[in-house]
Amino acid sequence: MKAHRNSNWFFDNLSPEEGHIHGIKNILYSGESEFQSMEILETWSYGKCLILDGKMQSSEVDEFIYHEALVHPAMLTHPKPESVFIVGGGEGATLREVLRHKTVKRAVMVDIDKEVVDKCRELLPEYHQGAFDDPRAELLFMDARKYLEDADEKFDVIIIDISEPVEEGPAYLLYTQEFYNIVTERLTGSGIITQQTGTISPNSLLNYTAVNNTLSTVFQVVAPYYANIPSFGRPWGFTLASKNVDPLSLPTEEVDKRIGKRIKGKLAFYDGITHQGAFRIPKYLREANRKQKRVIRDTEPLFAYTA
Amino acid sequence: MKAHRNSNWFFDNLSPEEGHIHGIKNILYSGESEFQSMEILETWSYGKCLILDGKMQSSEVDEFIYHEALVHPAMLTHPKPESVFIVGGGEGATLREVLRHKTVKRAVMVDIDKEVVDKCRELLPEYHQGAFDDPRAELLFMDARKYLEDADEKFDVIIIDISEPVEEGPAYLLYTQEFYNIVTERLTGSGIITQQTGTISPNSLLNYTAVNNTLSTVFQVVAPYYANIPSFGRPWGFTLASKNVDPLSLPTEEVDKRIGKRIKGKLAFYDGITHQGAFRIPKYLREANRKQKRVIRDTEPLFAYTA
Amino acid sequence: MKAHRNSNWFFDNLSPEEGHIHGIKNILYSGESEFQSMEILETWSYGKCLILDGKMQSSEVDEFIYHEALVHPAMLTHPKPESVFIVGGGEGATLREVLRHKTVKRAVMVDIDKEVVDKCRELLPEYHQGAFDDPRAELLFMDARKYLEDADEKFDVIIIDISEPVEEGPAYLLYTQEFYNIVTERLTGSGIITQQTGTISPNSLLNYTAVNNTLSTVFQVVAPYYANIPSFGRPWGFTLASKNVDPLSLPTEEVDKRIGKRIKGKLAFYDGITHQGAFRIPKYLREANRKQKRVIRDTEPLFAYTA
Amino acid sequence: MKAHRNSNWFFDNLSPEEGHIHGIKNILYSGESEFQSMEILETWSYGKCLILDGKMQSSEVDEFIYHEALVHPAMLTHPKPESVFIVGGGEGATLREVLRHKTVKRAVMVDIDKEVVDKCRELLPEYHQGAFDDPRAELLFMDARKYLEDADEKFDVIIIDISEPVEEGPAYLLYTQEFYNIVTERLTGSGIITQQTGTISPNSLLNYTAVNNTLSTVFQVVAPYYANIPSFGRPWGFTLASKNVDPLSLPTEEVDKRIGKRIKGKLAFYDGITHQGAFRIPKYLREANRKQKRVIRDTEPLFAYTA
Repeated sequence: MKAHRNSNWFFDNLSPEEGHIHGIKNILYSGESEFQSMEILETWSYGKCLILDGKMQSSEVDEFIYHEALVHPAMLTHPKPESVFIVGGGEGATLREVLRHKTVKRAVMVDIDKEVVDKCRELLPEYHQGAFDDPRAELLFMDARKYLEDADEKFDVIIIDISEPVEEGPAYLLYTQEFYNIVTERLTGSGIITQQTGTISPNSLLNYTAVNNTLSTVFQVVAPYYANIPSFGRPWGFTLASKNVDPLSLPTEEVDKRIGKRIKGKLAFYDGITHQGAFRIPKYLREANRKQKRVIRDTEPLFAYTA
Repeated sequence: MKAHRNSNWFFDNLSPEEGHIHGIKNILYSGESEFQSMEILETWSYGKCLILDGKMQSSEVDEFIYHEALVHPAMLTHPKPESVFIVGGGEGATLREVLRHKTVKRAVMVDIDKEVVDKCRELLPEYHQGAFDDPRAELLFMDARKYLEDADEKFDVIIIDISEPVEEGPAYLLYTQEFYNIVTERLTGSGIITQQTGTISPNSLLNYTAVNNTLSTVFQVVAPYYANIPSFGRPWGFTLASKNVDPLSLPTEEVDKRIGKRIKGKLAFYDGITHQGAFRIPKYLREANRKQKRVIRDTEPLFAYTA
Repeated sequence: MKAHRNSNWFFDNLSPEEGHIHGIKNILYSGESEFQSMEILETWSYGKCLILDGKMQSSEVDEFIYHEALVHPAMLTHPKPESVFIVGGGEGATLREVLRHKTVKRAVMVDIDKEVVDKCRELLPEYHQGAFDDPRAELLFMDARKYLEDADEKFDVIIIDISEPVEEGPAYLLYTQEFYNIVTERLTGSGIITQQTGTISPNSLLNYTAVNNTLSTVFQVVAPYYANIPSFGRPWGFTLASKNVDPLSLPTEEVDKRIGKRIKGKLAFYDGITHQGAFRIPKYLREANRKQKRVIRDTEPLFAYTA
Repeated sequence: MKAHRNSNWFFDNLSPEEGHIHGIKNILYSGESEFQSMEILETWSYGKCLILDGKMQSSEVDEFIYHEALVHPAMLTHPKPESVFIVGGGEGATLREVLRHKTVKRAVMVDIDKEVVDKCRELLPEYHQGAFDDPRAELLFMDARKYLEDADEKFDVIIIDISEPVEEGPAYLLYTQEFYNIVTERLTGSGIITQQTGTISPNSLLNYTAVNNTLSTVFQVVAPYYANIPSFGRPWGFTLASKNVDPLSLPTEEVDKRIGKRIKGKLAFYDGITHQGAFRIPKYLREANRKQKRVIRDTEPLFAYTA
C-alpha cells in the first residue's frame, strides 16, 4: 500500500496571471447549462466544490464561512427580518442560513439557472440540507432583476448571492447603480441588502471599491466587511447597505443575544466577536474605498478577471 | 503588438494537494544556500517575491501587510519598546518596521542564512529600504536559538519572523516549548513576543492551534490575531504573547495616538481600527484553539506541509 | 451554450523537470492496489487512459501503436510462433494482439497485479476486446520472474510489457542481466523476446542504452526499433532480441505476406513499410547504444525518472 | 546543500486540452515583437529554448534533429543544390545546416520578424554558429511570400521553416495552394521544397494531411517523412515535394556517399539509415494522407491549435 500522490489538478484562474489549484479526487458532474459551464468536483483539501465557468463558487470545507458571512450580518442587524429575497444562491446554502432565523416567514430565491440549482439539489445535499423543502421558501427560475422590477412586494433583507461579473456571464447587470435602485425600491423601511464584493487583495481592488462606491450613491449606510474563505484563493470582501441601520452600532453582546434568540442551532463562524472583527477592515481598504470615484452603470459595467 | 499571455508559472505548493500559482515575469535569482533553496522571482501580479524552499515568503505587493501585522501589534502594545530582537527576518523588512519606532534604541537581528540576507539586501532594496545600515541595528548570522540561550541581555520585544516548520528546514526547533522557554528568559518585565502561526484555513488548523497551545503553556497572555496576505495563498494567523500585557486592552484611539507619536511616516495596513479587527478572530478559530491540547516539544516537533 | 474550456488537468511527470498534461473529462477509477497506485482517466485528447503510479501506460487513441509495435515485429520475425509468454501486460491489449496470430496455440500472461488486470477487464473493454476469454489464453497473477525461473516450458516469443523501472515499483528486477538470463533459458531455438526500452529523447538515453547493452550481453541479435506513442509524451524505444533471427533480414513484401497469412483482421500501424522504417533508428541512437557500457544487474539496478 | 526541486514551469499548450511542461532555469528574454510574442527560456531538460506566441520552436538539446531533418533530406536528394531559399528560419540554424553543404553558392533567408532574428543572433549563438556572417548568406526582413512573388530568381531548394498556422500569427498564408504555386514558379527544374507539416499524433492529423494533400495538387512528388523532436511534445511530420526527384530512390549508400562528399563536419541525426527510416512512415499516416481531400486555400485557410 503506497501513499497517495495526487496528479489530477483543478486550476482556478483567479486572474490571467494568478491561480489556485486543487487536487481532484473525483469529478461528480461536468456539463454546460444554458447560462454557464458547471462542475461539481470532489477535491482532496476542500471536499465537494461547486465550479461555475471555471471559478470556485463554494467548497464543503469552508462554505459555512461564506454563507454565514453573507447572511447573518444583515439578518442580525435587522431588528426583525420576516421577508427575505435571495438573488441567485444556487447551492441553497444561503437559503439554508436564512431559514435558520425563526423570525423569517417568507424567503424568495430567484436564480436564473435551473440546471445549476437542480444539480446542487441532487449532488450537494450537505449544502442545502433540505432548505428547498421548507414551506417558507419559494424558488423561482428567472432573471432576478426582472423579478424585482416587476414586483410590488417589499423585503426586509435582500441577499445578493451571485458569481462575479464576467463579460459573458449572467451576473454583470446585477452590480450596477440601476440594479441597486431597483433593489432599494423593494426594501422595507429598515431594509438591508448584503452581497459579496470580490477580492480585497491589494493588487486588484477595482471591482471591490467600485461596487462599494456605486452602493454609496444609492444607500445612506454602506458597511464593508470581510471574511476569509480559503477555497476562494484570496481574501474576500462583503458589503452590507441600508437606508438607516448600521451594523457597527450593535454591541458584541447584542449580537450574541440575537443569535441565541433568533437562530436555530449553533453557528460555526459568526458571533459577536466575529461581527466586531469583520466590520473593522484594514486601513488600506478604507483608504481605497474612499478614493474610488467610479460608478458602475448598465452602460458602463465592470468586469472582473480581465488582465 | 499582441496582448501578453503568460505561460511561465511558479507553483507554490501550499500542501501536497493545494497550490497557488503565479505568472512569472522574470527570475532574478535562483540558487541554493547552505540551509535552503532560494529564489527571487518577479511575478506579474505580486511584483518581486522571495521564495525559500519553494514557498512564498513575501511579495512586493503585500509585504506591507505581513510586516506591519507582524511588528506593530507587539510594538504598539508595549508601553515603550527600546530593545528588539528579531529571530530570522531575512528580507530586512521586519527590521525596517521595527526601526520606524522612535523609541527603539537597539534592534538585534539574527538570521541563520547569510546568503539569503545578502541576496535580499542586493536584490530587494524595496523591502529593507536601507534598514541594515541604521546604526541602531545589529545583524548576526547564526542560530538564533543558540544566541538567545547564551545571551544575558533582555529585550522588550522579540519578533519571530521565520519560515514554517518543515522537516528538512532550519526552522522547526523555533516552534517548540523549549524554545519559548528560552525566549521568555530573555524578555524584560512587560516584554512581548510575536510571530506568524501559519494558515488559519479550516482544513489545516493543526499547526496554528498547536503553536497557540504551546505558547499558552509558557505565557499568561496569548493573543491570536490574523491578517490577509494574498500572496500566501491562504489566510494567515499571528500570535502575540506576553506575561502581562494584553493588546485587547488598548482602545482604538490609544493605538492611533501611539502610532502618531512613536512611528515615523505613515502606516498602510495598521491603525486603531485594524488593531481591533485583527484580534477579533472568527469563532471557529477560537474554538479550535480551545480544543487543541498538543504541546510542541523538541522531541515531538510538528511539521507543516505533510499530507 | 458556451464553448468548453477545460480546467482539470492530469500531470504526467516525465521527469522531475518535464511533464505532459492532459485535460481530464472524467475520473473513471482511482485507487491503490497492493503494488501501485492506479487510475483510469477519460481525457479530452486521448480518450480512456490507464495510469499506474502517476505515469501514463496507454491511451485509447494510440494504444494501437504501442501494442502493435510491441507485439508484431517479434511475432512476424519468428517463422511460426505457437507459444507466447507475456510478462505483465495488464490491460490485455498485448494479449489481444498476440491472439490475432493464427499460429498461436498457447499464450501465458503473468501479471503481478490482479487488481489492475481486474479493473482493466471491467473498465477498458476497448483494450482487451475479450482476449482474456480466449481458450488459448492462460492468465496468472504472480511474479513473472519467479514463474519463468520455476518453469520447464519453453516459448517461441516472450513479450515483456511492463512499466518503467522505478525505485519503489514492481518492475525494476525485470530489466537486469539476471532476468534476461532466465528469459533466454525459456526460449525455444529461434525464440525471440521484445520489450519497450523507454524514451529515446536525446536528453535521457541512459535507461534506453543500458537496457540495450545489457541485452547484448545475453543475446546475439539485439535489434532496437522505435515508435511514436504521443500519449507517452516523448518518442519511445523498443528492442527485439534473439539468438539467431534478425528482423532486418525480412523484406517489406515478406512482412506484408506474413501479416496477410497469419493475422486476423487489419493492422492500423504495422505493415512491411512500417517494419522497415521502425528498425532504421536515427544515427544519434545507434551511436549512443554503441558507446554505452553499463550492464544492469540485480545488484546494480537502474531507475528511470530520477533527477 | 539540498537537491534542486524545480517549481517554475513553462506551459506549452499543444492544444486547449493537452500540454507539455518544462522546468524553467532562467528567463533569458521575454518580449513582444511587431508580429508575435517571443521568449528565450533556459530549461532544465532542454537547455535554451526559443518560444514564439507561447509555442516551443526549438531547443538546444534537440534542435539538431529538427534542423537536420528539415534541411538534409531535400539537400541530399537534390543532385547539386547551389541556390537555396529559406522561408522564415529565425534562429539561423536552418541557414547553418544549409551552409554546411559545399555545393551551396547562395542562400537567401527571408524572415518577417527582424526582432526575433536579432534576439536569436544575440542570445542563441549555439544555434546559428555564425551562419549569418557567411558571405554566401543573404538575410532579408519582409514577407517571404511577397518576396517570392516579386522575384525572378529560381532556387534549387526552398526550405519553409515557419511556425504553425495560427489565426493571429504571421504564418497561415504560407500553407496554402496559392503559396505553393508561387513557390513552384521559383524552383529550378529539379528543384525541391521541404517543410515541417505539424504533429503526426493520431488525434490531430487534420493539419498534417491537409498540407500534404494541398502539396499534392501542386507537386508530382510528395514525400512525407518524420522525425522525433521531443521538445515539440508530440511526434512530428515533414514533407519534401518536387516535380521529379524522389528521395526514396536514393539507396542508403548513396545518401552516405553524398554526406561524405558534400557536407562539412559530421551529422548527428542524419545518415543513410536515418534517411531510409524517416521516409517509411507508419501505415496509419499513409492511410490518413490517402483519405484527406481538403485543399488549403487563401480563402479557406487552416488553423492549428483550435479546440
